[in-house]
Amino acid sequence: MANVKARVLKGFRDYLPDTMLPKQRMLDTVARTFESFGFAPLATPALEYADVLVGKYGDEGDKLLYRFLDNGDRDVALRYDLTVPLARVVGMNPQMPKPFKRYQIAPVWRAEKPGRGRFREFVQCDVDIVGCADLTADAECLAVGAAVLRALGVEDFVLRVNNRKLLTALLARLGIAEGEPAMAVLRTVDKLPKIGEEAVRALLQKENGLSAEAADGIFEFLGLDPATLSDWFADSEVGQKGAEELNTLLQLAAELGVRDKVEVDLSIARGLDYYTGTIYETFLTASESLGSVMSGGRYDELLGMFGGASEPAVGISLGVDRLFAGLLELGLVEADGNPTRVLVTVFDDSTRPASYALAGALRAAGVNTEVFLGGGRMKKQFQHADKRGIEYVVVAGPDEIARGTYTLKNMRSGAQEALERDALVARLR
Amino acid sequence: MANVKARVLKGFRDYLPDTMLPKQRMLDTVARTFESFGFAPLATPALEYADVLVGKYGDEGDKLLYRFLDNGDRDVALRYDLTVPLARVVGMNPQMPKPFKRYQIAPVWRAEKPGRGRFREFVQCDVDIVGCADLTADAECLAVGAAVLRALGVEDFVLRVNNRKLLTALLARLGIAEGEPAMAVLRTVDKLPKIGEEAVRALLQKENGLSAEAADGIFEFLGLDPATLSDWFADSEVGQKGAEELNTLLQLAAELGVRDKVEVDLSIARGLDYYTGTIYETFLTASESLGSVMSGGRYDELLGMFGGASEPAVGISLGVDRLFAGLLELGLVEADGNPTRVLVTVFDDSTRPASYALAGALRAAGVNTEVFLGGGRMKKQFQHADKRGIEYVVVAGPDEIARGTYTLKNMRSGAQEALERDALVARLR
Repeated sequence: MANVKARVLKGFRDYLPDTMLPKQRMLDTVARTFESFGFAPLATPALEYADVLVGKYGDEGDKLLYRFLDNGDRDVALRYDLTVPLARVVGMNPQMPKPFKRYQIAPVWRAEKPGRGRFREFVQCDVDIVGCADLTADAECLAVGAAVLRALGVEDFVLRVNNRKLLTALLARLGIAEGEPAMAVLRTVDKLPKIGEEAVRALLQKENGLSAEAADGIFEFLGLDPATLSDWFADSEVGQKGAEELNTLLQLAAELGVRDKVEVDLSIARGLDYYTGTIYETFLTASESLGSVMSGGRYDELLGMFGGASEPAVGISLGVDRLFAGLLELGLVEADGNPTRVLVTVFDDSTRPASYALAGALRAAGVNTEVFLGGGRMKKQFQHADKRGIEYVVVAGPDEIARGTYTLKNMRSGAQEALERDALVARLR
Repeated sequence: MANVKARVLKGFRDYLPDTMLPKQRMLDTVARTFESFGFAPLATPALEYADVLVGKYGDEGDKLLYRFLDNGDRDVALRYDLTVPLARVVGMNPQMPKPFKRYQIAPVWRAEKPGRGRFREFVQCDVDIVGCADLTADAECLAVGAAVLRALGVEDFVLRVNNRKLLTALLARLGIAEGEPAMAVLRTVDKLPKIGEEAVRALLQKENGLSAEAADGIFEFLGLDPATLSDWFADSEVGQKGAEELNTLLQLAAELGVRDKVEVDLSIARGLDYYTGTIYETFLTASESLGSVMSGGRYDELLGMFGGASEPAVGISLGVDRLFAGLLELGLVEADGNPTRVLVTVFDDSTRPASYALAGALRAAGVNTEVFLGGGRMKKQFQHADKRGIEYVVVAGPDEIARGTYTLKNMRSGAQEALERDALVARLR
């Protein structure tokens, strides 16, 4: 076996336990919260036939696919997101009862230029409701999103909502052609929080070719009081519909007890062309600069891409890495790869059975417990606990065993006491 | 967007919620059990530089790699197992305190000929202890394996153990050359449970080129009483060492309370050439035909493959799909994709807030609860619960709201009662 250099591909990374343990716990909480609303997990393959993916993400997206010929010369690609695979599953399983409420937490791959916080492999975490056109589904996505953040200990966040129909009506009124020209304008508007009004206005005129009047029209819209949207779009059926949907969504958010976390933001545009109604982004109030940690919307036309009838759908996607970075920043999680609460030391071979027995009792009580592997001086065993950040050490030497007790030491306070087994288990449970 | 056929690559598959929900719960239990022994999660990329993987799995393994040039013409491959990436991580992070106890649950990819129960993408679930040469580490792997099975409700299983040093001593005595000839003999012996003694004897002579006497020698060894191993190998240092290690392992298993689940099986050989000491396989007594659901052993030389000092290591790998199939067979899990325990119906728009409020209270009490999306006749809403297998339905109509009660219906028994909110939550908690 030739000795090769151990290295990781650029844009990829290992998650050592320090990061992976708290991240895994975060994802477990997310999954439990999704399930508490009745969403069920789905898993799809990492590899798909390339033709299932190509053409779904625009020309730019196609270039970012990890696409290759497999050993049987099949044209295959690694999945780019979790939405197209969902569409494929829905297309292949027309028998599934609707609404189909699913979540999926899984890595996706994009051959992007790696940069700060941008990786070629990252975990997506999507929750979607397929087969329900009613706005209660849009509202449920808001509610489950808020519930996820609260379950993670985040109280200061804002769910910014908008409706794509309003933007469609606006662009139609300004005479901007549907399709790519309209999408390009929306992508420019989406930059507003990053680059500011002046720069967006300049781009709209220079890159999108809008007149000064059209650019004014866009900023007039963005400055509207949401309560006046219906009047402003009095001449537009789609605009009226958008205003009505947004209004209903706010009403449902109030009924769901999340209205105080929801703000209308008419500048939210979402760069993807498949949204058809509600769109959302979510920001941690204390870390707005992180960007949106949870985004999505309604996409009623997308799921028809594999033939058959389309299904209305709405969903949100959690930015797992961003959210984790936010939780670290807020001090709601900490980098800590140690799952062990108690180290039971081993005095010598003759006392090991007692150490094993205590560890078994602690684990049965739900306390994560290690028994020191091998043997050696007590000092070495205490150092191991110290280095790993283990909170408690138990000594079960011959004296302790003769007295029927164990010595429990709190490694943080240094406090030490002798306890019988049941009392010790009860103390740590 | 061209309409393409929705299809899945051969050897790959979707896990719909019916399978994925119980499978996810199984994996959660496995992870919690690993953590209860102090193992911490590690995650590595799906893609590695090809030279990190090539040459580690033999010529046959190399052919099964999904290997390709990425968009930057780097020679890359999808990971084939979780052991080589572990070796890479250990090689790149010499600062990590030892023993390093990690688990990893993640898919791996092998371009095998698909067959019954053989897929090109499957989840591996590995637990390993790096940096501890002591047999207490080997024993801990037995203990955590047994704890995982018990946590999943399996009581009838057997951990078959052997020691590679015994096989090494045996083959040396029979004059079989080390390396590939010896490995080929071990792979033949490994087939014993599947094809029986006569067929193995024939293969040993025909394919491995052994004399009839050498084949006899192998079967004499396989028939030994484990207590006599030390005598049998009186002239072999490595044989003596193997017998001693096996004996110590059994002693530690007794101390750990798992001796009754452990059996010596001298025919366990494990096909991979990197094992150096303890080897194990695990069978569900009621479903032996499934094959081993958990296998592994000690591999003290492998982790030096990326330069630097080698580290002793021992671990086991859970066959996730086999184990899940076994749990299904034993009736310990069932295919069920419904995480929802309670459906709260919606009478009309005016009563929806009461339905939302109750659902929120139920979720806060840890009860997975759906509110019917949209509206419509009660009959339709009950049918939805029925079709999804939801156990309880709550009706919160105008009459109920006026009385300050909800109607709770058990969909299995048909029993129905009126309860105030707190009483209802307490009943379902």
